[in-house]
Amino acid sequence: MKMFEVSSVAKAKRKILDHFSSFRLDDELVEIYDAAGRVLSEDVLSKNNIPHFRRSTVDGYAVFAKDTYGASESLPAFLDIVGEVHMGKGAEINIIENQTVYVPTGGMIPKGADAVVMVEYTEMLEDESLAVMGSVTVKENIVDIGDDIFENETVLRKGQILRSQDIGVLASIGLDRVKVYKKPTIAIISTGDEIVGTNEEVKLGQIRDINTHTLTVMAEQLGCEITKKTVVRDEFDLLQEELKNSLKNSDIVIISGGSSVGTKDITRDVIESVGNSEVFIHGLAIKPGKPTIIAKVANCLVLGLPGQPVSAMVVFKVIVDYFVKYIQNIENEIKYGIEAKLSSNVHSAQGKETYQMVTVEKAGDEYIATPIYGKSGMITLLSRAKGYIVIDMNKEGILKGEKVTVYRF
Amino acid sequence: MKMFEVSSVAKAKRKILDHFSSFRLDDELVEIYDAAGRVLSEDVLSKNNIPHFRRSTVDGYAVFAKDTYGASESLPAFLDIVGEVHMGKGAEINIIENQTVYVPTGGMIPKGADAVVMVEYTEMLEDESLAVMGSVTVKENIVDIGDDIFENETVLRKGQILRSQDIGVLASIGLDRVKVYKKPTIAIISTGDEIVGTNEEVKLGQIRDINTHTLTVMAEQLGCEITKKTVVRDEFDLLQEELKNSLKNSDIVIISGGSSVGTKDITRDVIESVGNSEVFIHGLAIKPGKPTIIAKVANCLVLGLPGQPVSAMVVFKVIVDYFVKYIQNIENEIKYGIEAKLSSNVHSAQGKETYQMVTVEKAGDEYIATPIYGKSGMITLLSRAKGYIVIDMNKEGILKGEKVTVYRF
Repeated sequence: MKMFEVSSVAKAKRKILDHFSSFRLDDELVEIYDAAGRVLSEDVLSKNNIPHFRRSTVDGYAVFAKDTYGASESLPAFLDIVGEVHMGKGAEINIIENQTVYVPTGGMIPKGADAVVMVEYTEMLEDESLAVMGSVTVKENIVDIGDDIFENETVLRKGQILRSQDIGVLASIGLDRVKVYKKPTIAIISTGDEIVGTNEEVKLGQIRDINTHTLTVMAEQLGCEITKKTVVRDEFDLLQEELKNSLKNSDIVIISGGSSVGTKDITRDVIESVGNSEVFIHGLAIKPGKPTIIAKVANCLVLGLPGQPVSAMVVFKVIVDYFVKYIQNIENEIKYGIEAKLSSNVHSAQGKETYQMVTVEKAGDEYIATPIYGKSGMITLLSRAKGYIVIDMNKEGILKGEKVTVYRF
Repeated sequence: MKMFEVSSVAKAKRKILDHFSSFRLDDELVEIYDAAGRVLSEDVLSKNNIPHFRRSTVDGYAVFAKDTYGASESLPAFLDIVGEVHMGKGAEINIIENQTVYVPTGGMIPKGADAVVMVEYTEMLEDESLAVMGSVTVKENIVDIGDDIFENETVLRKGQILRSQDIGVLASIGLDRVKVYKKPTIAIISTGDEIVGTNEEVKLGQIRDINTHTLTVMAEQLGCEITKKTVVRDEFDLLQEELKNSLKNSDIVIISGGSSVGTKDITRDVIESVGNSEVFIHGLAIKPGKPTIIAKVANCLVLGLPGQPVSAMVVFKVIVDYFVKYIQNIENEIKYGIEAKLSSNVHSAQGKETYQMVTVEKAGDEYIATPIYGKSGMITLLSRAKGYIVIDMNKEGILKGEKVTVYRF
């Protein structure tokens, strides 16, 4: 029997870097409305100052600050109201000392003025003069030119995943389109003589295809474009044909099932048969997910994943996530999780990075993570889980009561 | 000057429940491939046992467990190999005592057998007999009928947001379509005489529209369908027209800008002018976001949000998130965050729920959250932030060094 030469996850990632260091993803221009979740392929600079005119942050009166010094309710400063600024219009009036102009929130500050007194601290008198009953300092209640964004400032960086607020920044500087990486393309092939689709009848010995569905959803959530999703029988020629076709238009090809070293496991042989291919990992020190194949074929990442749904999802999460972020220059992100206390000991095999599914419940002020177990291949193991915890390969487990971070699948 | 009657966020939520207790969102059948992120409108039961036949979890030999008791390398048990089970086929052979059949991983266990011996613990002899060099217990290496899912078991519940693994469960029980709530529909209207779109020229006194963009992306990420996104001038008739039209086909109407109590703030008057409307909140004890209007018009939630981009996003996050989850029966979720230590004191106004933007950096084994500040209306305040922390309305702030949880916008 062939044996695995098991690699650590860290080593697998290093080898992916080595093999794909010259990989380049094309970019494309997209409308900013369609750009959320996409990844910038170049830095974005602002051509303008934002704001490009001085704005008031309050409803009030634009003044020379020094005209208000010492003003109080008992001893107001009196200024001449010489006009009003309208929203969305230039402030055409300039003021000189002892003059003032009404400016609404967001309105333009007229020339001369260097502060705004909130309307609450003023009183308009009958003869178009204003009593100011408080003092303001220079620049008070004013957003200056470029205070938000300077001309030529880099507002967003290459490799950044665009969030709603980043789309807001793009809108604020007047960009209607932005350059992002093309979505990584991915083909998802499930193999297995026992696998049938959702519309077919399930006979004895057969089970329904799960992996095509779960991996497709994961790939879409990761921002990939699906070039193919299909189920094929465990036949060398059929699988080879599907792989060859997928290589033509995909950055990533996933084959789930047949990745182990049994007599019926043909994935490795098929990958090696198509030419210009190198299997550089067969066997990953991860649990679940050991029988994993990682290969480069032409310029494409080809993964052989275990057929067990949970294993396939775990390896996808670890390896495909990593690759998709790498080829889009996404920096290693701080991941959001749930800090919880473990409700019972979790044992793990030293030398393997272990992914343990858990439920999470609130107990008083803290969260309790409870490991859940199931026999190999049970999909409900995942659907019952809130998320997973990762146990380092150098540990033998985590003890009851220890703090863990639960991540989302 | 009109004044706010400020309500706490908790009170606002209670009032929303009171006013929308009879709100019903329709449901629809969608293909499971399109169902990720959607919300189940009814419980899902499995019609079948999964698996519906006994499966082997290993490559090995199906046996009567008791035939292996006491077997060891020095004293193997010898069994007659009477056949082989093929993947995806029924096991047509029944075994009797002292017989065995080869079964691949995932293959069907033949009748009679009650355990599987891993191939590693066996040796096939020349005369079609098998030496078994270890013992197995009853049910060892077998997934029983219904072990994953029982017939009539509720596998997923109403109000559940469908994740990749849940789609996998739906696939495993043979559902190709599933009943989910229709996407909540939302119209987004930004008002302001100073606001221009991304394709227009910006003159002095004008700024570009941000809110339509940020709120649209947030609404989409929340699973809503956008019925309208538009910018209108601060004119009563225009805004009334847009609101009336939006009410016809939207569950939620957002009007950003003009939500305060100044002379130019017309949102409340417009909402009250359209008939069958009730403004039940004007003024929210939240920072930023105080000048917020919450109303029910016919059967529609109408929100007046502050025009400042950060305030608008914060209130959207708090109120629209809540409403969208409520009308889809989504249970109060445990939110993923980042546990961090605060790098400096954050002051907050007691009596207001405060949303403070922070950056997050790794320092050794822990994360450090640093508050970032900016003048009112700066969008870069959000784009520079990793997320936000929430300071309870009963607190006056959080001290440097305290633990905080950072949430994603």
